[in-house]
Amino acid sequence: MKKTPLRIVPLGGFGEVGKNMTAYEHGDNILIVDAGIMFPENDMLGVEYIIPDFNYLLDKAHKVRGIVITHGHEDHIGAVSHVLEKMDVPIYATPLTRGLLEGKLARAGKLQGTSLHTVQAGDHINVGVFQVEFFHVCHSIPDSVGLAINTPEGLVVHTGDYKFDQTPVDNWPTDFGRLGQFSERKPLVLLADSTNIERPGWTPSERVVAEGLDKVFREAKGRILVATFASLISRMQQVANAALNYNRKLTFAGSSMVDNAKIARKLNYLDLPDGLQVPIDQALSMPANEVVIMCTGSQGEPSSILGRLAYGTNRQFDVKEGDTIVLSSHPIPGNEESVSGTINRLFQRGATVIYEAIANIHVSGHPSQEEAKLMINLVRPRFFMPMHGELRHLKHHSLVAQSLGYKPEDIVVVENGQVVEFLNGKMRLAERVPGSYVFVDGSSVGELSAEVMREREMLSRSGVVLVHIPLDKDTGQLRGEPEIFTRGFITAGEGNEIMETTREYISEAVKKANGDFRKDVEKAVSSHLYARTRRRPHVFVTFSTI
Amino acid sequence: MKKTPLRIVPLGGFGEVGKNMTAYEHGDNILIVDAGIMFPENDMLGVEYIIPDFNYLLDKAHKVRGIVITHGHEDHIGAVSHVLEKMDVPIYATPLTRGLLEGKLARAGKLQGTSLHTVQAGDHINVGVFQVEFFHVCHSIPDSVGLAINTPEGLVVHTGDYKFDQTPVDNWPTDFGRLGQFSERKPLVLLADSTNIERPGWTPSERVVAEGLDKVFREAKGRILVATFASLISRMQQVANAALNYNRKLTFAGSSMVDNAKIARKLNYLDLPDGLQVPIDQALSMPANEVVIMCTGSQGEPSSILGRLAYGTNRQFDVKEGDTIVLSSHPIPGNEESVSGTINRLFQRGATVIYEAIANIHVSGHPSQEEAKLMINLVRPRFFMPMHGELRHLKHHSLVAQSLGYKPEDIVVVENGQVVEFLNGKMRLAERVPGSYVFVDGSSVGELSAEVMREREMLSRSGVVLVHIPLDKDTGQLRGEPEIFTRGFITAGEGNEIMETTREYISEAVKKANGDFRKDVEKAVSSHLYARTRRRPHVFVTFSTI
Repeated sequence: MKKTPLRIVPLGGFGEVGKNMTAYEHGDNILIVDAGIMFPENDMLGVEYIIPDFNYLLDKAHKVRGIVITHGHEDHIGAVSHVLEKMDVPIYATPLTRGLLEGKLARAGKLQGTSLHTVQAGDHINVGVFQVEFFHVCHSIPDSVGLAINTPEGLVVHTGDYKFDQTPVDNWPTDFGRLGQFSERKPLVLLADSTNIERPGWTPSERVVAEGLDKVFREAKGRILVATFASLISRMQQVANAALNYNRKLTFAGSSMVDNAKIARKLNYLDLPDGLQVPIDQALSMPANEVVIMCTGSQGEPSSILGRLAYGTNRQFDVKEGDTIVLSSHPIPGNEESVSGTINRLFQRGATVIYEAIANIHVSGHPSQEEAKLMINLVRPRFFMPMHGELRHLKHHSLVAQSLGYKPEDIVVVENGQVVEFLNGKMRLAERVPGSYVFVDGSSVGELSAEVMREREMLSRSGVVLVHIPLDKDTGQLRGEPEIFTRGFITAGEGNEIMETTREYISEAVKKANGDFRKDVEKAVSSHLYARTRRRPHVFVTFSTI
Repeated sequence: MKKTPLRIVPLGGFGEVGKNMTAYEHGDNILIVDAGIMFPENDMLGVEYIIPDFNYLLDKAHKVRGIVITHGHEDHIGAVSHVLEKMDVPIYATPLTRGLLEGKLARAGKLQGTSLHTVQAGDHINVGVFQVEFFHVCHSIPDSVGLAINTPEGLVVHTGDYKFDQTPVDNWPTDFGRLGQFSERKPLVLLADSTNIERPGWTPSERVVAEGLDKVFREAKGRILVATFASLISRMQQVANAALNYNRKLTFAGSSMVDNAKIARKLNYLDLPDGLQVPIDQALSMPANEVVIMCTGSQGEPSSILGRLAYGTNRQFDVKEGDTIVLSSHPIPGNEESVSGTINRLFQRGATVIYEAIANIHVSGHPSQEEAKLMINLVRPRFFMPMHGELRHLKHHSLVAQSLGYKPEDIVVVENGQVVEFLNGKMRLAERVPGSYVFVDGSSVGELSAEVMREREMLSRSGVVLVHIPLDKDTGQLRGEPEIFTRGFITAGEGNEIMETTREYISEAVKKANGDFRKDVEKAVSSHLYARTRRRPHVFVTFSTI
């Protein structure tokens, strides 16, 4: 009997949507699949994005043989540069994914010295003890792959993000045949995308969007703006097709959109006939009904082009009466508020706004229930391990697998950090490793600790009160009036009387203080303010003895 | 020609979902319809709820003749006590609405001295120059009414929240006949509910929920918990019916649920056969499969029973393996995150969680597109004014009206604060009055100013740094080390070196300072910290001269 188990270490995307990262470990061999980021749930606490907690890998960096990337979306590639800061490992990706990743690594100053390898669907590579086969899947970005990972314990099928689009825009459906062949190799375990598992039926084909866009272009009298993810290359293609049909010129606004279009076009994933694309300056000087602008911001990000247009803070151009603005996207969970706010603000500026709820201008890139069933029935693994979803999605994916005859004990629903081991055809839960959030505020200092986050949250709830107390060095008593400043607690006007009584409480506290002077006064001020306002601002006391 | 216009003053619910409040004004007569609250979009900044800004009414309090309430939901009655603090006016409501309002006013200490009047659907009352007729509408709470307001400028029809349920649980459909009769009186303007206007078709009947609940009760092996709004009386009835069918005892947990059930039962809006309801203590000691518990928290509110169960902080009982928990609700916009978090946590605790996305255990109480069309075609008003919705909903409602032949110039889409005037059969936009948010943090001090909110937001993004500088009174130079405290900025460990260099910058700044000493040092510290960390904490400087 073998002694070394195959270990699956879920580091991101298990129990959440976003920042996907999985490690496969066998003895001295670790293979990382994807390293993505996730955006914070609301525009608070100064967090720019969140990366997986991969502390588990840090003292095993020498065992990591490579990072394999399934596709070029942020939630799969966004944290690669953070991983590369800690370990120097080769990266494997398909051409478009590699192109997009190179752009990101270059911006992070991490491109030089990184060993990047291009792979194609159908290729086999060896990464330590693992042999990885790439198979094509449809998703909302071209050149996506799933992985068949041959391990000493058997074949693991890792779908990545996928859907079973029969008529994708690039005419390259998910590789049904290859998936079916896996079943003959008696796969050990299938890890499959759960993002959309609550939707019954089949996800519509990306081609549905062409009809929705056609209607928009037919009816729009003025300028058209289409906002979507910068990485949604197939959406760019569809907008380009509509622009051709309706004699409009196409331009891209925003550097990530411009860069990605350039990469995709260079690598032949985007077919733009010569003369269709014009620079943004030219587009802005043309008649409104001859132009379509593609830009970022479909998630309501305030710093994106669309966000700035909504707030009236875009430099190059403004929203005009008569503009038709298409949000070709679905709000990521947690972004509903900011997307809704953006839509409302664009309406306020006189635009006609078209969005998913009222028109067919977006379809999901993830499988619905019937597709999830097809995936399981094609692969027929021994064990099933749902991934890419909140716990509710993983649990529901488990029920879907049970409806196909899988027993609960052959399905493993785990959240980030719960290691799963396979040995001699048996599955068991192993230890828990760190698997939470690492907050990045996009600065040079980088990651934000949980402590700092807690403090920010506390400050945000009730503000801060600062007290400076001048003491007489001889008597130890007050020498002059205490100074009080507040932020986020109370307005100057309504606060005056409360500040007056607070000063009285401070003199009392100073008289009685013994032991830790600062703590005593802070406590007295806090409890007085709470009694008066039912709020608990953070109170700081400084003092000087004169 | 008449000179005094009818003025519609939208104070809440125009351009947002929640905190509904409308004022009708004619000369010296003001009628207020509803005064609701809204919950903050996320659990930040210490806001408990938000009320309409009714500053416009304050110096006109003597003209306000009454408040008419359409139904007993928080977003229509929650701010009544705040209005009563500023003006003493009579209130008109149907029996259940009055019962629920009395409970709220009693808790706010406002019941004594308030003049409450019971009205019934079909009644006419005079409120100043306005004659108000009440007509029955279906909604997710019994005893809801719409208003036909006879004004000197013509008949105004104000739907309130409604749906056209043909088979409501209380067998009392919306009063189609009365609505149809209004059309013969050539109504001036219709104000209609836009909440659900993005949904095509018809909203399903409340009766659909009975089937969904039946399936839950049939399949549940252990205890059943049903979470919903405390005011969703018809949902209580349906759960009671299912409990009867499946031989379970029913109990209510949480004071608002217990109180509302008691009021509804007393007023005959809730039919509970004797012996069905048991006290919570008794329910907890019974076999799990003989009990169903109804509680609050379907919006993921952390302080609700369900929220506490999800976090494991409920005092009286815990979630057990084998529990089936039903969230019989739809997340209010902005609550998606916390609802989703609650579902995931309940799964973590071993419960089976049933929610809207995966089962028919909730239907909306608002009209979908075809119902909105029916309402307009029944009433056939001269003008149309969508209400109860974000701007996107109001705009969409306008398109729906246009699809029925209304011209854009006969439809008025306005946000809170934009007064609309009607005179001699003509409509025009009048001035803007205050119509924004008033934040309440539930304390004795009450409302939070926009300034305080901005400060809290700023603190939450990057934290705070406090510097205390001891100066020598003779030389004006540093006398000892500056003290530095931080919160929400940087952790102690990583901050040490930065704090060291900050102290050096402080000495430099002290040497160079001229003019406003405090500002100079704050600026120097801020720009140093930004250069080092790319973060902009709020910097405060205090100093003492010795």
